[in-house]
Amino acid sequence: MVSSDLVISQAEHKSRIQKIRDQMKRSRCAALYLTNPTRILYTTGFSHISTERPLALVIPQEGTIFMMGPHLEEDHVKQDSPLIEEFFSYADYPGITHPIRHFVKVLTQKRLETSKIAADSFDGAAGGWGYRGPSLRELLRQSKMVDGRDLVDNLRWVKSEQEIRLLKESARWAEKAHDILMENIAPGRHDALIGMRASYEALIRMMKKLGARYRQLKWGLSPVVVGCRGQVGPGSAVPHSVFSKRKIQRGDVLVTEAGVEVGGYTSELERTVVVGRAGSREKKYFEIMLRAQDAALESFKAGTPCFQVDAAARRAVESAGCGGTLRHHVGHGIGIDGHEPPWLDPGERTIMKTGMVFSCEPGLYVPGFAGFRHSDTIEITKYGMKPLTEYPRSLEDLTV
Amino acid sequence: MVSSDLVISQAEHKSRIQKIRDQMKRSRCAALYLTNPTRILYTTGFSHISTERPLALVIPQEGTIFMMGPHLEEDHVKQDSPLIEEFFSYADYPGITHPIRHFVKVLTQKRLETSKIAADSFDGAAGGWGYRGPSLRELLRQSKMVDGRDLVDNLRWVKSEQEIRLLKESARWAEKAHDILMENIAPGRHDALIGMRASYEALIRMMKKLGARYRQLKWGLSPVVVGCRGQVGPGSAVPHSVFSKRKIQRGDVLVTEAGVEVGGYTSELERTVVVGRAGSREKKYFEIMLRAQDAALESFKAGTPCFQVDAAARRAVESAGCGGTLRHHVGHGIGIDGHEPPWLDPGERTIMKTGMVFSCEPGLYVPGFAGFRHSDTIEITKYGMKPLTEYPRSLEDLTV
Repeated sequence: MVSSDLVISQAEHKSRIQKIRDQMKRSRCAALYLTNPTRILYTTGFSHISTERPLALVIPQEGTIFMMGPHLEEDHVKQDSPLIEEFFSYADYPGITHPIRHFVKVLTQKRLETSKIAADSFDGAAGGWGYRGPSLRELLRQSKMVDGRDLVDNLRWVKSEQEIRLLKESARWAEKAHDILMENIAPGRHDALIGMRASYEALIRMMKKLGARYRQLKWGLSPVVVGCRGQVGPGSAVPHSVFSKRKIQRGDVLVTEAGVEVGGYTSELERTVVVGRAGSREKKYFEIMLRAQDAALESFKAGTPCFQVDAAARRAVESAGCGGTLRHHVGHGIGIDGHEPPWLDPGERTIMKTGMVFSCEPGLYVPGFAGFRHSDTIEITKYGMKPLTEYPRSLEDLTV
Repeated sequence: MVSSDLVISQAEHKSRIQKIRDQMKRSRCAALYLTNPTRILYTTGFSHISTERPLALVIPQEGTIFMMGPHLEEDHVKQDSPLIEEFFSYADYPGITHPIRHFVKVLTQKRLETSKIAADSFDGAAGGWGYRGPSLRELLRQSKMVDGRDLVDNLRWVKSEQEIRLLKESARWAEKAHDILMENIAPGRHDALIGMRASYEALIRMMKKLGARYRQLKWGLSPVVVGCRGQVGPGSAVPHSVFSKRKIQRGDVLVTEAGVEVGGYTSELERTVVVGRAGSREKKYFEIMLRAQDAALESFKAGTPCFQVDAAARRAVESAGCGGTLRHHVGHGIGIDGHEPPWLDPGERTIMKTGMVFSCEPGLYVPGFAGFRHSDTIEITKYGMKPLTEYPRSLEDLTV
């Protein structure tokens, strides 16, 4: 694997596994049993489509790292993942013998059946789609199973240099994708089509520029996703809109999003865009939203508790008399998953550390009228904070 | 809601809820508590982006159907889902008081705290991304919680006329999308870009033709997904490939996929495509795969157990001396989720019934060389079976 590849290096995966094993040693666990695709990707670099078919990665305290899974993933693992040294396959799910019973046999063969095992699922399977099965914990009665989620997830809060590099590259392409989106926004067009077109054009440019350095790790039609996701006109007041039947009209407020997966990591860039000319009502909310984002941006700092970033944005909105328009906290950690802890939320007392990466996205929503939200991706640095997404924020720049 | 809309009617949702309540009555459950987005969509038509924020639909045996969830979904539910009559919101996750504790208060207020409750998650939350929380079961110690997944999922095995209509419409657009994909396949091109382009072009045509009848229900950049997902050349031998760096070359075998979401439902169409001219080795495996699919297709029949369809395909492959190339069973149920029970698997003794819908996709995989798989969507009818996807299957038709 060439170091210029836009993926996490094998050396870093090995160091992550070593950190996991150090924690396991302290808690006297003989093995860590993982089923969640993000945790498996984080520890080994192996990306797979998680289905009803059980699949588990086992990191023993000592010895061979192995995977148990459906036959259809065996060649995939062997080809992609040198860190996974053995693969124990079953034919398919549900099978004549249930896969979890196969797993119990393998764990027994590995002499783990009476050990203390940390697991991210006591069922023993990620449990997608129509999965049903006996729980691993019930079948492994002689073992002591404990919650192992944090053995991996604790490592994910503070990002490494490699992770920051991937998030930065992701942000760079999100900015370009957003430029292309802006060029395509016009009255009479449907946001779903504009989004697809801009995603396609940005993908062409990215693959041309990055060439063989680029590899999509997460399952999906496109690693570039830019568009409005139905947040068009009155639909922009619904933060988690999915689709809008309504075409873009002159005067509409849009809330956009741009995310590009690079090496499994996706930054977040969102903008409030006005089509045509902003009226006084649009201007008012846009300005308050900007002030709230400014207040939040000024609060990011190593040593400060997370809830203070949320509080700063909230104060700005409330002091403008618009507290009632808030619908969510100001942001979340970012990495492999779309949202990750820690949260920028009143209930989050975690202290920010250098290397943490957050979205910063205060939102004002006026039902039946419009929503106003910018989102940027922010890295906590030694010197304060650094936006990984660098994109115009003013109403002037965001009017098309 | 106009009946010509390509979504499940409100009357059908009401009838589904009635069937659920009938089952609840028999098992003396006071309420059904649902967290899984597919089950919530199936029962109410409400589609949402499932995140770390807990959200639950509660269908009491009698009285008002209500939802508990984050504030950011409140307007969304009110606007989209008349069947959900009340919404109890919490500010955000994790919050100063954990959302599950809010849910306990609401359930207590609804006098359900000492009742028998069927739930699809004893945690009380779908548990996405970095979610952590106390389990609902532990907080509701006076209630008796039982597994409620099958109260919904049992209904999903046999499809209604409306569901078949949506799957048929989905298949119709998948065929068109696949035609467009075929026009774009050429040596020197990257399959990810071809897939995006064909998906975009097919989406344009679909939205133009269906207009306001169309509404995307499931979260995603595009409801039309057509492409190869990295199953290109030697990569076609990896059934669940995610991406290929390698561009298409003359002589390559590709395994395609086309899926279009209509009203939440997605059919499955996949084809083995040869670029240029098939050699004798490609021809051999292609023909065996076709024979295996024919054998499977002939085995679909109401009254026959599911495992027999798999056995028929397997026999065809084994009698050609290629049993070692099999990597998975022959298919799965299809509906809202990508894979659904029942499974066409040696371990599945379920008897096929009129109205069940399956994928039919025997696959032969030769590591380092190529994979061979067609997939069609098959409806079990009174008279035998009917393919919902109708697309050329011969090597001649699938050579570009």
